Amino acid sequence: MNVNRRVVVVERPRYIVPTANCFRLEQAPVPQVGEGQLRLRTLWLSLDVMLYARVKRVSADAEPVNLGDVMVGPTVGRVEESRHPDYKAGELLSGFWGWQGYGISEGRRLRKLDFGLKQPSHALSAYGTSAFGAYVALTELAPPLAGETVVVGTAIGGLGQIAGQIAKIKGCRVVGIAGGTEKCRIAVERLGYDACVDHRARDFVEQLRAACGKGVDVFVDTIGGRALDAVVPLLNKDARIAACGLMATPHFGEAAYSGKYQSSMSLLNEIINRRLQVRGLVVFDHLRHCLEPFHREMTAWIDSGRIKLIEDIVVGLEQAPDAFQGLFEGRNRGKLLVKIAD
Amino acid sequence: MNVNRRVVVVERPRYIVPTANCFRLEQAPVPQVGEGQLRLRTLWLSLDVMLYARVKRVSADAEPVNLGDVMVGPTVGRVEESRHPDYKAGELLSGFWGWQGYGISEGRRLRKLDFGLKQPSHALSAYGTSAFGAYVALTELAPPLAGETVVVGTAIGGLGQIAGQIAKIKGCRVVGIAGGTEKCRIAVERLGYDACVDHRARDFVEQLRAACGKGVDVFVDTIGGRALDAVVPLLNKDARIAACGLMATPHFGEAAYSGKYQSSMSLLNEIINRRLQVRGLVVFDHLRHCLEPFHREMTAWIDSGRIKLIEDIVVGLEQAPDAFQGLFEGRNRGKLLVKIAD
Repeated sequence: MNVNRRVVVVERPRYIVPTANCFRLEQAPVPQVGEGQLRLRTLWLSLDVMLYARVKRVSADAEPVNLGDVMVGPTVGRVEESRHPDYKAGELLSGFWGWQGYGISEGRRLRKLDFGLKQPSHALSAYGTSAFGAYVALTELAPPLAGETVVVGTAIGGLGQIAGQIAKIKGCRVVGIAGGTEKCRIAVERLGYDACVDHRARDFVEQLRAACGKGVDVFVDTIGGRALDAVVPLLNKDARIAACGLMATPHFGEAAYSGKYQSSMSLLNEIINRRLQVRGLVVFDHLRHCLEPFHREMTAWIDSGRIKLIEDIVVGLEQAPDAFQGLFEGRNRGKLLVKIAD
Repeated sequence: MNVNRRVVVVERPRYIVPTANCFRLEQAPVPQVGEGQLRLRTLWLSLDVMLYARVKRVSADAEPVNLGDVMVGPTVGRVEESRHPDYKAGELLSGFWGWQGYGISEGRRLRKLDFGLKQPSHALSAYGTSAFGAYVALTELAPPLAGETVVVGTAIGGLGQIAGQIAKIKGCRVVGIAGGTEKCRIAVERLGYDACVDHRARDFVEQLRAACGKGVDVFVDTIGGRALDAVVPLLNKDARIAACGLMATPHFGEAAYSGKYQSSMSLLNEIINRRLQVRGLVVFDHLRHCLEPFHREMTAWIDSGRIKLIEDIVVGLEQAPDAFQGLFEGRNRGKLLVKIAD
């Protein structure tokens, strides 16, 4: 029991997707608590697409983890021992101490989960970065009006599932895009999407057009690539795109010049002709003014049952690398979490 | 003298650029004035890139001219005979009656030029669509702050020359992009650009980087293509792009998929990482709320000598097709106008 199992980064991705061999499971002593520190027992990890930037540099905003260091990521845990005046043993906290059984903290970047969470995992699914991103997308970047048609990429993913349900709450017709018929069924039956289209289907473009009879007013784009190319011709005048991610090319820069997708000239032309507004999502930019209303509204939506959560739970720290790889291969069915301990 | 010379569209562009063979000079009787009509003697034509859409369909907003019909375009002329209650012979008007010596009008889409123009041609250069577009770009779509760096494509063109000077008035460092060293010299010496870079130079990208030492905050993009690809890496966080045209591909849709330029994925990635705001210019959308302040400010700027006009004047209706072709080949040196009569 006196062992801290931890996953360290040992290699940068070679094949676009961060394959499991980028990581190694190690054992180390359970860390001791120094003055002004606290030790956390990790209960949950959140696996998010945006963590790609922590394995390989793809943005100026996130520093990659050094080779040999513990992989970072959103966490939930319980204080085991505290020598910090603000925290006491037994408290439930969320933070970013990463893929390990125990974390040591100086008390920064921690949040007390004392606001009546239904389940600790909700800190990462309902109140996590993905859910916050969905909220920012539909309130700040690309707000829809009631009656408008909203298309959501990765319909049941961590961000998509929240975006789809917020759009329904706002009175929109909501059409999802997902990989595979099973995910599409989940989107419609469990999350209330009006329709969901499988982007792997041969007639994807035609299906999407049929599902968006009045055109598309807002696109919450988490995919780019084929999804973007299919949605753009359906966009109505004054449509808004919230660019929340580019699952189609997590390797950004490399494929960007490949000519596989429409050129930037084509997108610019549509921005002009269709009067599009395209805004990118960087969640950190919106914390100050959006976090409080997000938290308040999300709590009300969950309490009233208007937002449901679909969590895809993997058990055991040793599963994290493969599950993370699966996230980029579309294997997850909902917000991907790793359960580390009870 | 009783002949109405006119240029009709006889063919759609075959070679991207609208070559002169798309047009034919014809003669017809001078049109008679019916009840409620007026006849205008054309003095000036404005040749604008946006007229491309009138020769070949490239946007949903502009209907191409039918083959055999007179080519349309902005015009200035004098009322020769009027049977319309609102107009009388001798008045100077601007309108859109196109490439012909005489126009007949029912009185719609005409504007009285009774506000103290220094020269009739100014109705098309200083107060025309291009100048209005420049104003909209820098006040509505991508407003710069004093001290910021603004890059302007087609630096001495109809839109660019006004955009560059407005940006200077707003206290910005202004860097132009133009095709050839002569245009660059004109931009700096006559229009006050802080620097102007020749996009045909082999070291264009390096020159542009050197000219934008503090990065780029606003890009008035009339070119797309290489210019866009060169500017994007220089954009600062929260930079704004006013997409005013795509001279690099007037044929839009055809080259859009060629993979010659960066993909839309790359642009989207930059929109996210650099928090870019990209807005397209469609001048008609801004007439209602911007035309009055534009007119007022432009008049003040011209009266005070803060905005200078560089007009490239071609003489004779028969020159219009070749001059129009030259516009897409970068042959013009300033706002391109055709003088039809004194």
